[in-house]
Amino acid sequence: MDVRDTLEGMRRDVDAELGQLLACGGSRLFEALRYAVLGGGKRFRPLLLLSAGEAFGAGRALLLPYACAVELIHNFSLVHDDLPSLDNDDFRRGKPSCHKAFGEGPAVLAGDGLLALAFEVIARAPSPAGHTERKDAALREIAAAAGVRGMIEGQWMDISLRAGEADERVFTDLVRKKTGALIRASAAAGALIAGAPADGLAAVERYGDAVGLAFQLRDDLADAAQSGPPSGIDAVALFGRDGTRARLERCVSEAVAALDAGKVASPELRYLTREIGPGSGT
Amino acid sequence: MDVRDTLEGMRRDVDAELGQLLACGGSRLFEALRYAVLGGGKRFRPLLLLSAGEAFGAGRALLLPYACAVELIHNFSLVHDDLPSLDNDDFRRGKPSCHKAFGEGPAVLAGDGLLALAFEVIARAPSPAGHTERKDAALREIAAAAGVRGMIEGQWMDISLRAGEADERVFTDLVRKKTGALIRASAAAGALIAGAPADGLAAVERYGDAVGLAFQLRDDLADAAQSGPPSGIDAVALFGRDGTRARLERCVSEAVAALDAGKVASPELRYLTREIGPGSGT
Repeated sequence: MDVRDTLEGMRRDVDAELGQLLACGGSRLFEALRYAVLGGGKRFRPLLLLSAGEAFGAGRALLLPYACAVELIHNFSLVHDDLPSLDNDDFRRGKPSCHKAFGEGPAVLAGDGLLALAFEVIARAPSPAGHTERKDAALREIAAAAGVRGMIEGQWMDISLRAGEADERVFTDLVRKKTGALIRASAAAGALIAGAPADGLAAVERYGDAVGLAFQLRDDLADAAQSGPPSGIDAVALFGRDGTRARLERCVSEAVAALDAGKVASPELRYLTREIGPGSGT
Repeated sequence: MDVRDTLEGMRRDVDAELGQLLACGGSRLFEALRYAVLGGGKRFRPLLLLSAGEAFGAGRALLLPYACAVELIHNFSLVHDDLPSLDNDDFRRGKPSCHKAFGEGPAVLAGDGLLALAFEVIARAPSPAGHTERKDAALREIAAAAGVRGMIEGQWMDISLRAGEADERVFTDLVRKKTGALIRASAAAGALIAGAPADGLAAVERYGDAVGLAFQLRDDLADAAQSGPPSGIDAVALFGRDGTRARLERCVSEAVAALDAGKVASPELRYLTREIGPGSGT
């Protein structure tokens, strides 16, 4: 099967599973959860998780709950980051952001709900037969990435630092936490569930690191093309367009090199670096 | 040892462990986490968890991470519920609430951080030797209680309903979710980690159900004594003081009866029902 068809099939499976998870419950809370999660999003993190897991032989059904969990965590962070007291964004994926559609208090709760649901989904997920330690390892990886030394610390840094206060070291540290941690953890969790050998896991982690940074550089380039100078810490403001593009190309090369060095045969993981490559637009 | 000494020892152990968990990290985010969690709080949920677990033979060290996790989840809910867009409370435990001390955006992130940290702590916790399925069961219980069919749904109901819209059925449903779910899960998780037999677990769950409802009734009585008519759904507004007191006494009796019926020999669980009894003040 063509790699794009494989990825498209994964995307459909993730969307179907997310739809199931959010279907029960006729309450307005579930309406808010569905609004925040369904009908948009490239499902980049779930695709990394499924691709890494399948590259090491795990089945799709075993991986899907974890793939949904990382997407729920990603969407939790979007709902909260958009709040007036944080980034104050009125739009998300071309429609009013959650707090514009449901109110600010409800959006706080909806975000909380997505984060809690992610862990509930992992809690209910079966372990690989005979390998409960793999589920434990994936849970540790995902929880750490979402947490106070990962994504949440990154967002805290982002609202605490002002443009001009960051150099490349600070920028890289911030991005590794805010964006990179969950991306890296998604790839690693797939490999962990599959029981990848140590060198395979290490290769996937290096890949995830590079892809996480690339992802933010690509986003900042796209933002600069669309809306001019940004408000927060931003690659284009720091490195210029050419400098950002050069760093992005370097990250993509590093990601591919990590797969090669670790002999990770995954056309999907390789293709996903293209989606964030310099020529990928938004 | 006297039951009060035992409970005091548990409280000290929980506070010490929470202090450890929040010690690392010199950042202002960790300062906010410590502000929200340390130096206050009766640690009621951790005491339930430790008491139930020890009643069925689990060791304190094995139970402590789970006890801290439920306290972190409780404190997450306090930080977010106090936000201006939710209950808008300026004070908590006699000092300015988290958002008054750190700002609203930071308080959103601090609450998120406490919720994520709770699951990180569980993820890192060891399983009872030879019984990884017990950790899994406790995680499921706690995640469900914190989630969109538990505490978060309860808080959503609380901000959606107005005083006068609730009858006893709605009130009980709301309280079971908002307050009761985590209290019940705390007691159940202790029993699950300890590998309690099915009838023991069922008794602890019935106990937790009754204690959860009692807890809210006692709180509403205490609030009514202190500050007059409440804003939201409230037992005293619904049942009057005498009606609330009668219901509270009934819940406490049910809790004790559940322990008796299940032959759960725990002076601590029995004593904890006194702390929420009609004569317990605040």
